[in-house]
Amino acid sequence: MRILQREEIVSLCDFDEMASAIERSYVAVSSGSATIPPVGYIQFPEQNGDCHIKFGHLHGDDVFVIKIATGFYNNPKLGLPTSNGMMVALSAKTGEVLAVLQDEGYLTDVRTAIGAAIATKALARPNAKKLLIIGAGIQAREQALAHNRFLPERDFKTTIWARNKDKAAELAQQLAKRGIAANPSDALEEECRAADIILTTTPSVEPIVQSDWIAPGTHITASGADAPGKCELDPALVQRAQLLVADKVDQCLDHGEFSNAALDKTRIIELGEVLAGSAGGRQNDEQVSIADMTGLASQDIAAATTVLKAAGVS
Amino acid sequence: MRILQREEIVSLCDFDEMASAIERSYVAVSSGSATIPPVGYIQFPEQNGDCHIKFGHLHGDDVFVIKIATGFYNNPKLGLPTSNGMMVALSAKTGEVLAVLQDEGYLTDVRTAIGAAIATKALARPNAKKLLIIGAGIQAREQALAHNRFLPERDFKTTIWARNKDKAAELAQQLAKRGIAANPSDALEEECRAADIILTTTPSVEPIVQSDWIAPGTHITASGADAPGKCELDPALVQRAQLLVADKVDQCLDHGEFSNAALDKTRIIELGEVLAGSAGGRQNDEQVSIADMTGLASQDIAAATTVLKAAGVS
Repeated sequence: MRILQREEIVSLCDFDEMASAIERSYVAVSSGSATIPPVGYIQFPEQNGDCHIKFGHLHGDDVFVIKIATGFYNNPKLGLPTSNGMMVALSAKTGEVLAVLQDEGYLTDVRTAIGAAIATKALARPNAKKLLIIGAGIQAREQALAHNRFLPERDFKTTIWARNKDKAAELAQQLAKRGIAANPSDALEEECRAADIILTTTPSVEPIVQSDWIAPGTHITASGADAPGKCELDPALVQRAQLLVADKVDQCLDHGEFSNAALDKTRIIELGEVLAGSAGGRQNDEQVSIADMTGLASQDIAAATTVLKAAGVS
Repeated sequence: MRILQREEIVSLCDFDEMASAIERSYVAVSSGSATIPPVGYIQFPEQNGDCHIKFGHLHGDDVFVIKIATGFYNNPKLGLPTSNGMMVALSAKTGEVLAVLQDEGYLTDVRTAIGAAIATKALARPNAKKLLIIGAGIQAREQALAHNRFLPERDFKTTIWARNKDKAAELAQQLAKRGIAANPSDALEEECRAADIILTTTPSVEPIVQSDWIAPGTHITASGADAPGKCELDPALVQRAQLLVADKVDQCLDHGEFSNAALDKTRIIELGEVLAGSAGGRQNDEQVSIADMTGLASQDIAAATTVLKAAGVS
């Protein structure tokens, strides 16, 4: 059994390889060539904590992956990070444990950001350049990096809005050091009205983006709503959008943005179908499109498998 | 994060500590002071393999445990063991990963055998001495050891029957080296008629023990049926028994011996209730009693926690 620590995992991550693997994993899920059982879940109410176990197998892969992720929301008071976790990779041929990836949540951050960039590429208008990022946390940073890396031809003009102005400014500084120009702004409505593409990355439990702020042709990739009760988009905006794309329909209707609007399930298509060409994507420059990204075990598998290949494990 | 290998785990196992912890875990499960979510499951039909993920938390414990266990039934053809697996221990206070126990299934073998001995102690007639073990695999060996260790006052007279005579003889030799006298026998019916206590430990998918072979007062601890389709006891025997005890009622009705007989659920009591004194056990020396042991995540947690304490991890 190999044990890979976070630092080694970071050094082994090849963005382009991982993005290709994650794109393929969306297609696998939507075409039924992946086994993704229901997520395991255990709560620790006294500690305001929980643990999710995501696992599955992309058919044909030599490896399958079990991800253990904890969130203990009182941890910051103890000076500890909220999130913890690891992945276990096993042989899909023999059941042997091949590796433990002590990534401390790093791969989840990266695969979430890459998934968002894949959705934006598939759904935004070809000439869309004005990128508004809502939020200034790890996911805001990773999505800024992933969108610029995955879509360099767009030459994005990036704006950051966050509830905490100082954090938006801090993130802009961090990104500048990575060669990405981004302007912090405190005018949320104005920035939403001006944006071509909006990325929502917050843990909000009430709508941040209002329907009447959004111009025709805008694309929104919404990644915050990953559990029941979370919500970043005005339900009227979801209702009004012409193109509704889920990473996984059932999951988005259970706890994603799409669960907050009374939607006819038949209006929703899956990202993997768009990527495979089996469902139509954007039809014109006037459609409002929304990608509801709740996060899939298949992304974890794709991310872990890329690292394991680079490490010579599989 | 500590990594404990099999050899270290074996050396850290204190049988008496572990038996106490497992007894308490049955009481915790039956009294509702444990969170044990449904078992995660993934199949690999092309390799004739599967993976079970058992996890949970005994309320008040500082640690919770996730067990990953694989069974790949074509492995012996490749010269590999069928079973593999590991446990991961995390802090129930902060969600941090504390340890990986690379036990390769050792703790499952031991906790299963200890659970069987606890059931036998709780349910068999006080003077029952004639012990028949059906099967000659790892679990037959471990149950012989656990029963003799846990119930030394019984001074068991032990017989072993297995479909393969040579294996029964081999196991008797192995046990002799551990100071336990056991006689191999090839007369199944006769041995069943003579036994006070029967332990069934096989992966059989059809009844081995027939109802009309079983004398009044006999106790049976059945551990083989741990998945749908498995069966060691004649359903008429289950129907006829006066004392039906499940490790967990829902689990036994889903895939244990009790699932093979059309039973009124109200006839079944839980082992934890008997151990806590909240449900009556054996009433007289004439009752036939059956303990249906499907295996609980709480046993894994208790076993792992005992090892972790001995290792100074928690």
